[in-house]
Amino acid sequence: MNLLLLSNSSSDAGYLVHALPAIRELIAALPPGAPAVFVPFAGVTRNWDDYTALVVSALADTGLDIQGLHRAEDPVAALEGAAVIIVGGGNTFNLLGQLRRQGLLGVVARRVRQGAAYLGWSAGSNLSCPTICTTNDMPITDPQGFDALGLLPFQINPHYTNAHPPGHRGETRAQRLAEFCTLNPAMPVLGLPEGSGLRVSGGEMTLIGPHEAPLFLGQQEPRVFRPGPVEVQA
Amino acid sequence: MNLLLLSNSSSDAGYLVHALPAIRELIAALPPGAPAVFVPFAGVTRNWDDYTALVVSALADTGLDIQGLHRAEDPVAALEGAAVIIVGGGNTFNLLGQLRRQGLLGVVARRVRQGAAYLGWSAGSNLSCPTICTTNDMPITDPQGFDALGLLPFQINPHYTNAHPPGHRGETRAQRLAEFCTLNPAMPVLGLPEGSGLRVSGGEMTLIGPHEAPLFLGQQEPRVFRPGPVEVQA
Repeated sequence: MNLLLLSNSSSDAGYLVHALPAIRELIAALPPGAPAVFVPFAGVTRNWDDYTALVVSALADTGLDIQGLHRAEDPVAALEGAAVIIVGGGNTFNLLGQLRRQGLLGVVARRVRQGAAYLGWSAGSNLSCPTICTTNDMPITDPQGFDALGLLPFQINPHYTNAHPPGHRGETRAQRLAEFCTLNPAMPVLGLPEGSGLRVSGGEMTLIGPHEAPLFLGQQEPRVFRPGPVEVQA
Repeated sequence: MNLLLLSNSSSDAGYLVHALPAIRELIAALPPGAPAVFVPFAGVTRNWDDYTALVVSALADTGLDIQGLHRAEDPVAALEGAAVIIVGGGNTFNLLGQLRRQGLLGVVARRVRQGAAYLGWSAGSNLSCPTICTTNDMPITDPQGFDALGLLPFQINPHYTNAHPPGHRGETRAQRLAEFCTLNPAMPVLGLPEGSGLRVSGGEMTLIGPHEAPLFLGQQEPRVFRPGPVEVQA
C-alpha cells in the first residue's frame, strides 16, 4: 500500500504546507493531472465545497486533478477511477458515519488495497486504522459501528500530546490511551505529534517530521520512535 | 427528580470534598444508613473494588450505606432497593456499554424517575443526558448506541473549558461543541466548568460552584448562567 497519514493539516506555514514534500513523494509515480478524490465528510462546521476548494488550492502545485466526493454523480465510480484518495480532517464520527451510510467505506478500502494512494490527516488518519477508537473527537453522531478502513494493523492517535491546560481535572491524553490499551491489550497505538506523519510504502513504514512518536502497547513502557524507519508488531 | 450532576470529582481539597455540601443537600431527606449503589463501570484503569472503596471513604460522613453494583448478587434488586444511585467518572463509553450489556440502563433510569436520588460526576453526568454525544472521552469501546439515561432534556459537557495547550492544532472544545450544535441544532448543551455542578430538584435547576456556565444552542450566541437558577428550554 501507498499511504501518507498526517497528524494535522495546518501549521504556521499554511494549510498542508509542512506536508508538501511528503505528498509529492507519495504521488511521485503518477502522471500530471492524475485523478484524485477528496473526501470532505469529516467537515461539520465547514461547507464541503469550501473545504474541497481549500484542499484543491493547497495542493494546486502537485498537478493532481482533485474532485470533491460529495459532488460526484456516481461516488463509487469516482473512487474506482481515482489514483489518489484524500481524506481530510474534522470530526471522525461524521466521516465514518457518512462513508458507512453511503456504502463507500468498503470501496475506499478496496481501492487503496488495489494500489490507489491514500492521503489522510487527523480524522483521515484515524479512518485508516482498524477502528476509530483512538480519535480525540467528540462523538457528535453515532457512526453505527467503530470499525474503519483497516489499512493499518494498528491504531494512530493524531495530534498526540500529553500537555493539558492548567487546572484540567479531566483525563490526560496518556490516561485516555492507557484506558484504550487496558481494554485492547494486543493493539498498538502510535501517537503522532503535530507536524508528524507516517509514510507507508509497500511493507516499509517511516516516521516523518521533526518529532519523536511513542508506540503504546498494553501495559508496556511506550517504545519511542525517532524520525525514520518504524516497525510495529501487531 | 432529584439529581446532582458534577463536572468533576477531585480538587486540591481532595476527592469529592468540594461537592460534599451539595451531596448532603441531595440526600437531606433520607434517614441515616440509607442504601446507596455505586456504579464503578466508567473505571477502566482502576479496579472497581478500589474505586468503590475510594467513594465509600469520600462519602463516609454522609451516613450512606454504599454498595458497589459490580459486587451485587442481583444488580437489578440492588438498584431497586437503592435510595441513591451514584455514578462515578472515567470513560463514558465503557460506562454506557457495561450498563447496556448488563441490561441495567433502563433500570437506573426508571429508579431515578421513581424518586431515587442520582449523584453523578464527569462520565456519570454525561450518562444522565439524552445521549453521550457531548462527552470528552475517547471512544475506546463501542457502547452499541449513544442513547443514555435521558434524565435531562439537554446535554452536559463536563470539564468545560476552552483552554488548550500551546501549539495544539486539533479542534478546541468550542469547535467540538459547535460541531455538535451544527448536527443537533435543537439540543442545548450546558458547559459545566471544573468545580461546578447542576442541582435538579423537582422542576428546579440550580448551577452550583464558583463559576459561570455557558449554554450552547445551535448557532446562537451562548447564554451564560451565573451560579443560581438555570432555565433551559429544550
